[in-house]
Amino acid sequence: MKIVHIGATGTLGSAVVTELAPRHEIIQVGHQRGQLQVDITNSDSIKTLFERIGKVDAIIATTGNLHFGPLTQMTAEQFRIGLNSKLLGQVDLALIGQHYLNDAGSITLTSGIVANQPIRLGANASAVNSAIEGFVLGAAIELARGIRINVVSPTILEESMGIYGDFFAGFEAVPARRAALAFRRSVEGAQTGQVYQVV
Amino acid sequence: MKIVHIGATGTLGSAVVTELAPRHEIIQVGHQRGQLQVDITNSDSIKTLFERIGKVDAIIATTGNLHFGPLTQMTAEQFRIGLNSKLLGQVDLALIGQHYLNDAGSITLTSGIVANQPIRLGANASAVNSAIEGFVLGAAIELARGIRINVVSPTILEESMGIYGDFFAGFEAVPARRAALAFRRSVEGAQTGQVYQVV
Repeated sequence: MKIVHIGATGTLGSAVVTELAPRHEIIQVGHQRGQLQVDITNSDSIKTLFERIGKVDAIIATTGNLHFGPLTQMTAEQFRIGLNSKLLGQVDLALIGQHYLNDAGSITLTSGIVANQPIRLGANASAVNSAIEGFVLGAAIELARGIRINVVSPTILEESMGIYGDFFAGFEAVPARRAALAFRRSVEGAQTGQVYQVV
Repeated sequence: MKIVHIGATGTLGSAVVTELAPRHEIIQVGHQRGQLQVDITNSDSIKTLFERIGKVDAIIATTGNLHFGPLTQMTAEQFRIGLNSKLLGQVDLALIGQHYLNDAGSITLTSGIVANQPIRLGANASAVNSAIEGFVLGAAIELARGIRINVVSPTILEESMGIYGDFFAGFEAVPARRAALAFRRSVEGAQTGQVYQVV
């Protein structure tokens, strides 16, 4: 398959590329790195990306920023960070990307365990990750031409424990290569509207 | 208790007022109607509202707009309607309102059944309602001074079947007074971080 992967240069993204590269042509897209660049908070930038690439069989998004900070000091402006980036960024990749997918193509987004298992400082992350899962549920029943959509919800990655480990006290970390398997399952499988929990 | 209720003039809101008014002082707030007005998409408007009212024991929000439309034509701009109004509007009422709550006060937000049971044209609603539930989960573990937060997720209301019934084909409607009970449970009960499903 021809796959466009936005966020391919990140910790999770790199593992997904390693998992899929032996069997697929992957166009690796980053914000500043990768073969091509895109700003997921800008619809024009997303359209330009897809116009350049043309039709694909699968879209993978492992990308988007969140705001982490204490709820008692949180502002709407801070909350908007996750809404504009990880949530609407991934949603817009799906909304625009659906028109560049071949029949029976797939979209795979990324949420995260805090959608269901909240952590301190993580109210924005819980909201955004839950929203992505809700969007996938809603989008799955409307996508045309056999196009599927799923979301992978990984727990904290072993590779990210050095930076984020303290926020996830007592969580069992998983290696990124295990999370990458769920992306393979979504891309190469036949299900739609699924949340693949990787814990 | 002294309760500020944003969205008190709507279909659901009116039923909540009927349920709570015999035992509480309710300040009914609307966008254009009610005793006081607020624009929930504007943090300054929310701050002005709370400054005017002062300390309260409970905040109830039964308010916010969503975008309904076909996924295959949906744009980020349309998707933003629900993010800015029902999602960030209710979140901002909680973020600002927490500072105007007495100790052991409560916040009760409103999501909706499409968070879990998607309908055609409803991808924005599924995302937004799921996000509100995720936010409540995350906020519940961080709120200070014994402040609680819950969300009520009603199915389609009998009173709204005339307008929205076709979108909810085969759904069992509930009377708004049944949904109102869940708000009483949140305000007068002791739980936090709960999603009260009214189906």
